[in-house]
Amino acid sequence: MELLKERIIRDGLAIGTEIVKVDSFLNHQLDVAFLDELGAEFSRRFAASKPDKILTMEASGIPVAVLTARHFDNLPVVFAKKAVPSTMTEGFYTTNVTSFTKGTISQARVSQKFLNVGENILIIDDFLAHGEAALGLISLAEQAGAVVLGVGAVIEKEFQSGGARVRERGYKVESLAVIKQITDGKIVFK
Amino acid sequence: MELLKERIIRDGLAIGTEIVKVDSFLNHQLDVAFLDELGAEFSRRFAASKPDKILTMEASGIPVAVLTARHFDNLPVVFAKKAVPSTMTEGFYTTNVTSFTKGTISQARVSQKFLNVGENILIIDDFLAHGEAALGLISLAEQAGAVVLGVGAVIEKEFQSGGARVRERGYKVESLAVIKQITDGKIVFK
Repeated sequence: MELLKERIIRDGLAIGTEIVKVDSFLNHQLDVAFLDELGAEFSRRFAASKPDKILTMEASGIPVAVLTARHFDNLPVVFAKKAVPSTMTEGFYTTNVTSFTKGTISQARVSQKFLNVGENILIIDDFLAHGEAALGLISLAEQAGAVVLGVGAVIEKEFQSGGARVRERGYKVESLAVIKQITDGKIVFK
Repeated sequence: MELLKERIIRDGLAIGTEIVKVDSFLNHQLDVAFLDELGAEFSRRFAASKPDKILTMEASGIPVAVLTARHFDNLPVVFAKKAVPSTMTEGFYTTNVTSFTKGTISQARVSQKFLNVGENILIIDDFLAHGEAALGLISLAEQAGAVVLGVGAVIEKEFQSGGARVRERGYKVESLAVIKQITDGKIVFK
């Protein structure tokens, strides 16, 4: 998606060879009109899939998941939670997720009542890096007997192989911008 | 807001005398069309305030903040973060936030570059309970020299006094549904 690549070049910041900082529009400050464009693009790319629900990971997957849902007739969105509030009383599905940027391993969970057998699930997230979050979300959906239609990521860091891991397992992956490498502070798109 | 009260009665669950569970539409599974209605209502209630930016707390404040922003000509949204990713490299404002439902004290922070002197900030969150999150967000904005126009909460639990704490400090508070008490599993609105 050209618009996104231009935005990443304009406002993104490469840190070392691994990290792209896009916190001015994607995952700390949110450019709502722009994220709505990204949501429209996801809805075009997954139009044939007929999802019943969008699944994402808190926190930074939520904005783009919500704005994608709006382009699918306001589909319900479910976000996996990383902390366990006292209000989360019934059974839930759980999976381990390693965050390389936060240096943590956490559990993500979804209440069983919000993922159902045979439901068609579209997974949306801000980044596809090592694939931990995407594979975790796939696991949550499949524990419920739901059908994963595919994974949509705003930015895929191809060099961290998460996209390959998810595609190898047979899932459709649509990334709106694919970064091949980061060299000398320069972001190189595929 | 009658529509919201009806929805809380229909889909909400009272747990003990303190907790209202609304995870089927507000803070785990998201009813996007319904949250958009809530956003429209916030935009009416704060129409005179002319906010420059919406500030919220991750994670469950994000959906309603984003959908409120859409009714204010796609204002930027900033969400305070509870974890520190390795991408958060520059200076940030920080505040302590106690979560009674999660039983934790955490730090919330916002990068300094996303809150500016004189900026008019509207704070939006899902719940106003003890007021910890709202007061934390106010503190973050004021550390930056920004102006807090008010706090919009989807659900205020009046009996936990957060609304009173925030109003006593002189801020406008708009809650779309105010729960007076929870008795015998019954939610009593103000």
